[in-house]
Amino acid sequence: MRPSGRATDALRTIQIDTNVTMHAEGSVMIRCGNTHVLCAASVEENVPPFMRKSGLGWVTAEYGMLPRATTTRNRREATAGKQSGRTQEIQRLIGRSLRAGVDRVALGERQITVDCDVIQADGGTRCAAITGGWIAMRLAVNKLLAAGVIKNDPITSHVAAVSCGIWGGVPVLDLDYAEDSQAGTDANFVMTDGAGLIEVQGSAEGATFSRDEMNKLFDLAEKGVAELVAAQKAAVA
Amino acid sequence: MRPSGRATDALRTIQIDTNVTMHAEGSVMIRCGNTHVLCAASVEENVPPFMRKSGLGWVTAEYGMLPRATTTRNRREATAGKQSGRTQEIQRLIGRSLRAGVDRVALGERQITVDCDVIQADGGTRCAAITGGWIAMRLAVNKLLAAGVIKNDPITSHVAAVSCGIWGGVPVLDLDYAEDSQAGTDANFVMTDGAGLIEVQGSAEGATFSRDEMNKLFDLAEKGVAELVAAQKAAVA
Amino acid sequence: MRPSGRATDALRTIQIDTNVTMHAEGSVMIRCGNTHVLCAASVEENVPPFMRKSGLGWVTAEYGMLPRATTTRNRREATAGKQSGRTQEIQRLIGRSLRAGVDRVALGERQITVDCDVIQADGGTRCAAITGGWIAMRLAVNKLLAAGVIKNDPITSHVAAVSCGIWGGVPVLDLDYAEDSQAGTDANFVMTDGAGLIEVQGSAEGATFSRDEMNKLFDLAEKGVAELVAAQKAAVA
Amino acid sequence: MRPSGRATDALRTIQIDTNVTMHAEGSVMIRCGNTHVLCAASVEENVPPFMRKSGLGWVTAEYGMLPRATTTRNRREATAGKQSGRTQEIQRLIGRSLRAGVDRVALGERQITVDCDVIQADGGTRCAAITGGWIAMRLAVNKLLAAGVIKNDPITSHVAAVSCGIWGGVPVLDLDYAEDSQAGTDANFVMTDGAGLIEVQGSAEGATFSRDEMNKLFDLAEKGVAELVAAQKAAVA
Amino acid sequence: MRPSGRATDALRTIQIDTNVTMHAEGSVMIRCGNTHVLCAASVEENVPPFMRKSGLGWVTAEYGMLPRATTTRNRREATAGKQSGRTQEIQRLIGRSLRAGVDRVALGERQITVDCDVIQADGGTRCAAITGGWIAMRLAVNKLLAAGVIKNDPITSHVAAVSCGIWGGVPVLDLDYAEDSQAGTDANFVMTDGAGLIEVQGSAEGATFSRDEMNKLFDLAEKGVAELVAAQKAAVA
Amino acid sequence: MRPSGRATDALRTIQIDTNVTMHAEGSVMIRCGNTHVLCAASVEENVPPFMRKSGLGWVTAEYGMLPRATTTRNRREATAGKQSGRTQEIQRLIGRSLRAGVDRVALGERQITVDCDVIQADGGTRCAAITGGWIAMRLAVNKLLAAGVIKNDPITSHVAAVSCGIWGGVPVLDLDYAEDSQAGTDANFVMTDGAGLIEVQGSAEGATFSRDEMNKLFDLAEKGVAELVAAQKAAVA
Repeated sequence: MRPSGRATDALRTIQIDTNVTMHAEGSVMIRCGNTHVLCAASVEENVPPFMRKSGLGWVTAEYGMLPRATTTRNRREATAGKQSGRTQEIQRLIGRSLRAGVDRVALGERQITVDCDVIQADGGTRCAAITGGWIAMRLAVNKLLAAGVIKNDPITSHVAAVSCGIWGGVPVLDLDYAEDSQAGTDANFVMTDGAGLIEVQGSAEGATFSRDEMNKLFDLAEKGVAELVAAQKAAVA
Repeated sequence: MRPSGRATDALRTIQIDTNVTMHAEGSVMIRCGNTHVLCAASVEENVPPFMRKSGLGWVTAEYGMLPRATTTRNRREATAGKQSGRTQEIQRLIGRSLRAGVDRVALGERQITVDCDVIQADGGTRCAAITGGWIAMRLAVNKLLAAGVIKNDPITSHVAAVSCGIWGGVPVLDLDYAEDSQAGTDANFVMTDGAGLIEVQGSAEGATFSRDEMNKLFDLAEKGVAELVAAQKAAVA
Repeated sequence: MRPSGRATDALRTIQIDTNVTMHAEGSVMIRCGNTHVLCAASVEENVPPFMRKSGLGWVTAEYGMLPRATTTRNRREATAGKQSGRTQEIQRLIGRSLRAGVDRVALGERQITVDCDVIQADGGTRCAAITGGWIAMRLAVNKLLAAGVIKNDPITSHVAAVSCGIWGGVPVLDLDYAEDSQAGTDANFVMTDGAGLIEVQGSAEGATFSRDEMNKLFDLAEKGVAELVAAQKAAVA
Repeated sequence: MRPSGRATDALRTIQIDTNVTMHAEGSVMIRCGNTHVLCAASVEENVPPFMRKSGLGWVTAEYGMLPRATTTRNRREATAGKQSGRTQEIQRLIGRSLRAGVDRVALGERQITVDCDVIQADGGTRCAAITGGWIAMRLAVNKLLAAGVIKNDPITSHVAAVSCGIWGGVPVLDLDYAEDSQAGTDANFVMTDGAGLIEVQGSAEGATFSRDEMNKLFDLAEKGVAELVAAQKAAVA
Repeated sequence: MRPSGRATDALRTIQIDTNVTMHAEGSVMIRCGNTHVLCAASVEENVPPFMRKSGLGWVTAEYGMLPRATTTRNRREATAGKQSGRTQEIQRLIGRSLRAGVDRVALGERQITVDCDVIQADGGTRCAAITGGWIAMRLAVNKLLAAGVIKNDPITSHVAAVSCGIWGGVPVLDLDYAEDSQAGTDANFVMTDGAGLIEVQGSAEGATFSRDEMNKLFDLAEKGVAELVAAQKAAVA
Repeated sequence: MRPSGRATDALRTIQIDTNVTMHAEGSVMIRCGNTHVLCAASVEENVPPFMRKSGLGWVTAEYGMLPRATTTRNRREATAGKQSGRTQEIQRLIGRSLRAGVDRVALGERQITVDCDVIQADGGTRCAAITGGWIAMRLAVNKLLAAGVIKNDPITSHVAAVSCGIWGGVPVLDLDYAEDSQAGTDANFVMTDGAGLIEVQGSAEGATFSRDEMNKLFDLAEKGVAELVAAQKAAVA
């Protein structure tokens, strides 16, 4: 039995609230169990210098965690004077993932920045940030379409993410923090609604893992992402 | 008529939700109209190096703002590599204000850090942070008392804050962003429940102000803080 | 009896020497008792990027302290790699204060930077910096007027500052370091020659203070600023 | 035909020179085609603070690139004042990978730091760094064993890495820079000599990829890592 | 004729005022013509970590320049977030030079930090800092001797410095800024009262220089340092 | 007898390999005994902002050291977040030295950056960097001439450097690390092929040195630089 009491292939309860802040072009609070991430999409009518005159848009992401989102307080990165390697790694992943679902020609020369701030952490924050970040981006793009700023929908697919792992020798879906800290292997899967793979990151903790185990994690991830995509669809309907 | 439609001596609607995050010893979401600040108090069983063996406790605060808490996106301070002068000024004010309501001998050699993160900004964020931060601290101290870690309540008074200003020539209470950006004078008042003054910061914008005007702002502030203290009492009851 | 032996409403001896450095457009060494601040005004024929094409000028200030201006040596901020929160707070205050006495349209699109460097500290450095900084600015503007670079005097009023506090229960004017470190309340007042208020910052140290006490500090400040303005007039005559 | 003219399952020519610097406990220059990485292992008889008294050793890695290792000059990170997100991501990967092949109890409370500096870059630098870094670590540990500092060999398996990708629709092994910049998908595999998986990182560039494609990349990687492990064995024999 | 009108072997007028600040253990304002440097020596009863338990003392120096010490305003290094390469090079030179005149065993395990801050710059600031810094150190050591904190004088020789250069083809002593900016060669000499060499730094600007020219600069420097040492003796008498 | 067994006027064995990296316009590995420095020259068709429209080219240098180039591991400067004072001092010296051998008008408005990275250190790294850096620059300029990008050779002389010192009371040429750490005086000489002086930096370690000793070091340096220039000529022939 998993610490969470869930079936091996069960996601945590998902709660998605949209338009939760008044200023952002798109915003969402996504709650995957006790992991809560506030995602806000901002549209700017220009792109980074190296992309000007390219006719292409850009989507980027930033990730942060409130100091007391965690069990014990973490030092505020603004005070430390820099983002940690972990933070940078995560926000690069979120940005790459979201761009994979966007036609940058159709977006036109503008930038969407998706800020993903973890309000409460209980494992799987980067996956929740991707799944929620896509919704914030979707809502912001809807506004651009409604206003006639862009003509054709630049969003080409849903993008959602889930972590899987081998806990007590058993492959399980959607690790929470208690499970993650005991898991022998941890893998994050970012996929489209058509189960197209965007990113796969599997990492051994302690023991190595086999291709057979990796395949079982793939199976779980496909099930999980399908459910997350369904939740995205319900949220933006 | 103020842009907000409020009477000159009317606060914005206050909504206070306590225990909003699972990890912090005390937490609160305070909403003063459209200004929303999440305050989380963390207790650590040690104090900064320069205070060790003093027998005294310490209360400090950190302030942050999500990048899209504002009308247009602000650069993330962790990305910029440092906190702005404004941020540091505000968090120093919050810390001084909260310490003014604490008996540091009774607290004992431990530290309470109050993180105040602005989720949505519409003027008066530092005042909301002080008023909400006090509640988070109160809840954290309640836990220490309940657990018998400390014997005597170290909190000696309520601490709450409100801004006042001269808008269109008229002294008004609790400026929102639209009013603040047009106000000729802006003053922040931090007080105890007994109307004892902790901090007064008045600043001319454009024209100077007179002692008579300052006195009218004092009157408004006393009314406002009394109502905020009442809201604090209701929240922690 | 105050440690300094002064009457409760007596300023420290003021000594102002102008044109003390050969390069700055305006410079002054101001000595308020043992607090010595060197103020230098530099004129640049351009403004910060966000202000270009606005037709408005800008006045800004920077504050520093020599490492051994203090009783024990303080770490050099250039070595530490950043200005402290205190330094930033002070230089923002000086800049706001000086701008309050300037007509930025008459100044035209140019910037005056007032560097205030504390050579020796004995309390009240920020007030001395404002009072002396105004003189440096005045001298620099005089040169611009004499050279015909600007037509109409952009300086609309004197700006001077003084600190007051409650020492041993008694309101006193112009705290030196020994008094300041024992004072129960400390307030800084920035005013024009017409006693118009520009900034008021009162802060409790330990006990709170009352409106009545605040009013007594106001009275002292008005007397002190009037004398400081007289000294400014004598210096630039 | 691949730009490199290699068969789809052919590694680049590998050249490994050991003990190439006089100071490091273990050093190696690994050349995978035109990608040249100098790896140096340093042994320190203490561990980071959070690990003291744990009885466990630590292995960590740092990654750098000479400014002109690349086609056009890249800014030196020491001049920029920080390591890029990419650099931090890579060195975290190298460290995790090498630790996966080490019994930290057998290593004892000491630290091995493996510096991987890219002298010339032509794609696949992180994989070359892992494969070469393992050899540097192996050589350093051999010295510790020979000197009797540690009794039992803490290295439990070989660790080597290779990148695969889908180039022109075809899965190919060991991408060089020209291939990598055109590849639709890029995946890095870190494995042991027993084909145990340590890290798998697959990333879509442009189009998504399928599980079937991922499986073909797995097949190629197993072949490639087996050959790299053979080269490691030859080098340290 | 030199721009300054001085003879080729004439120093600028030297003015040395001692004990110019109330807090430092030793302080001096040295004026070499229009170059004015405030030097303050601070004694701390401990040494840097790597020197503890060595029985040896340490002398170090820091160098700064007020933003408007120069013809046009220079950016404040505390604002820039770091000391420039030039500043670090100079303060390392000052520290090495002063240490060359000190018996670190006799000094005992304490540190003297000499802060050299340029109030007004007109060429030769580093030389003035060394000559003045030695006096500040001498005064601070005198206090330690008078107080009986140290028994034997740790200062073994005078240390003074002067710059020479080839201006208009002619070797000249003690370049001011106007001369320095036109000089073809610039050399700094740090010597003891016995003409022992501590540092020699000659640098071509444009054309190279010959050994013969270098020898002529040596001759000038010996004359200049002898006069500076005499001025030091007069100042501390 | 010197630790190295060399005659007092003998250089270490010099080995120079050119074109050692595929991307740089000019590259060289210079080995002076056990000191190995990789020098790479990069040509960019623009100059720093302050030099635009001047018609003048620019030559600059950067210096780095691999963390384990030294006996014990040094902290990576990119991790430390800044270049040390020593590093900046050295790279400023290299840049000044190389510029002394270049006609910046003939070079035209383009920049050559010479990266000097120490692969293995055994004393004299800055001198090896200058001697090797000149060769890298020479090779890069040869390419510009061959391509007809520049018409007239901007390189006006060879530039080479060597250190000398007083070891055991005896002046010796080309100190290695063991000798340098025991030397009483250390001097670096940068010269042209015609023995024109570019930089002379002599520094006492412990005892001062005399003009007579300085002259003996000059003699040694002239001999050493002549041999280094011969080696440069052979390398670029």
